[in-house]
Amino acid sequence: MKYYIGVDLGGTSVRVAKVSQTGEVVYVSKSDSFADKGPKIVLNNIIEMIKQIPEYAQCSGIGVGIPGPVDTVKGHITLATNLVDFEFFPVAEYLENALDMKVFMDNDANVAGLAEALVGAGKGKAIVYYITHSTGIGGALVANGRVISGRTGYAGEIANIKVTDTDEKINHLITGAAENEASGTAIADRARKDIDPNIVNAKEVFDLFTEGNELAIDLIDDVAYKFAVMMASIAHVVDPHVFVIGGGVTKSADLYFDKVKRNYETLVHPGMHGVEVVLSELDEPGIVGAAMLPMSYGL
Amino acid sequence: MKYYIGVDLGGTSVRVAKVSQTGEVVYVSKSDSFADKGPKIVLNNIIEMIKQIPEYAQCSGIGVGIPGPVDTVKGHITLATNLVDFEFFPVAEYLENALDMKVFMDNDANVAGLAEALVGAGKGKAIVYYITHSTGIGGALVANGRVISGRTGYAGEIANIKVTDTDEKINHLITGAAENEASGTAIADRARKDIDPNIVNAKEVFDLFTEGNELAIDLIDDVAYKFAVMMASIAHVVDPHVFVIGGGVTKSADLYFDKVKRNYETLVHPGMHGVEVVLSELDEPGIVGAAMLPMSYGL
Repeated sequence: MKYYIGVDLGGTSVRVAKVSQTGEVVYVSKSDSFADKGPKIVLNNIIEMIKQIPEYAQCSGIGVGIPGPVDTVKGHITLATNLVDFEFFPVAEYLENALDMKVFMDNDANVAGLAEALVGAGKGKAIVYYITHSTGIGGALVANGRVISGRTGYAGEIANIKVTDTDEKINHLITGAAENEASGTAIADRARKDIDPNIVNAKEVFDLFTEGNELAIDLIDDVAYKFAVMMASIAHVVDPHVFVIGGGVTKSADLYFDKVKRNYETLVHPGMHGVEVVLSELDEPGIVGAAMLPMSYGL
Repeated sequence: MKYYIGVDLGGTSVRVAKVSQTGEVVYVSKSDSFADKGPKIVLNNIIEMIKQIPEYAQCSGIGVGIPGPVDTVKGHITLATNLVDFEFFPVAEYLENALDMKVFMDNDANVAGLAEALVGAGKGKAIVYYITHSTGIGGALVANGRVISGRTGYAGEIANIKVTDTDEKINHLITGAAENEASGTAIADRARKDIDPNIVNAKEVFDLFTEGNELAIDLIDDVAYKFAVMMASIAHVVDPHVFVIGGGVTKSADLYFDKVKRNYETLVHPGMHGVEVVLSELDEPGIVGAAMLPMSYGL
């Protein structure tokens, strides 16, 4: 049995784990990530955490999952949103030099998708498309056991796929971007405008939907349509064997998943009907997927 | 030097070629495809054509490019539009049994993209996205030297990506599909409606554009925007190192390519700017790409 080291680095905390080739987490530790202290302090802390792992030197490689687009070839972040001074810092090289072990990096959605593809809900499928439907929307393409990250790490930035004509510029995303129409945050924002200014989150909108509130039903119908438009655009590019969908909004999956699937079938060729759309299975896809990165590259 | 056999099967004609591993066509023959006579007559003709190739038995494999979505694993067509009775016929198996050689299949846009990725305008790039901008619109994703065809061969059916909100149902594609907004056929159709009912083809619209016709300028501006929306959706899924664009409409590339590129940059994250968008290079991507299929699978 081979073992790998996974690092799940976030803006507030970092977790380091030893994971078996079948996805079993046999050791995990957690710490403040010191994200505001700059890359050397952040990485030196991770190096010390890794050295605490029992028999860490016998592991076959290290994988690091990081928020934001990652240049997987050069091993750095191309756009750091909550890790100070991390843009273009040679993260992989720094860790390799300190630990004498091969290091791979990818963004957090991509490693979560890799975990679901290799040992989760997409196991055994050649082309897995993973979508996280949460406060934001993220995606990951795993083809034949390996993440496709793209030229500068922007593969999977499906939040920015245009799903409707509108001139309303909401944030850094383009007008009509999927995330601004159908994410958890968008559901709450749209509900505050259309239903009740006191609504706090998407959960409340799903509660109103369950109570039969017609405005909430219209809103969720529209969200399900636009989410399906995004999925159809993805499918016309990669025609996956399975869509694996995770993230906080899927806690209400029984209220909107069937709507998404019905809309999806109206938005693709008949020959594409019947694709599996399943919920994610893993509790810890981030840390498991990070550890799977070296394995996906043949280590 | 290795050699491969490429078969470019169309609704009216079929071509068979011997192609070197570097993409040089050293022998080619052409015949009626007998597309209306059923798969056995079509394939027996191809088998005889292959047996005429000098030293055909020393070739390393056979690749077949076919119009319509192809199940590359099972080696059959899932939707035959102009090849009678070809749906689900075991094309690859039939040829393998007759010629005792490994046979791979993919659709014509995918093999053209493979040729451009391996020996054409995308040579040396890890992720190549090929688009044919012609009477229709087709696409192909080539990642690390291999075509991604998808679950049932629908990867690359980018003609059907939704690029605008409209209820107008024009044909079998979905409402607002890229092909119905921005293909060569769409340019002519839209110009007949908006400019002059006697317009025959896209070329005439580009001529009017060059003459300064304001309606033609508006139309080409809109086509360039919607083509860019389609490209942006693709890029948010796979973030290619290069877009290679071929097909008849690109004969007018100097009139609309810069518009497409400018629109594209407004529709993606700033970190995605600067992607190469280049014209296809090969004269015969269909036949060369078909021959490259066995090579892309390691033969």
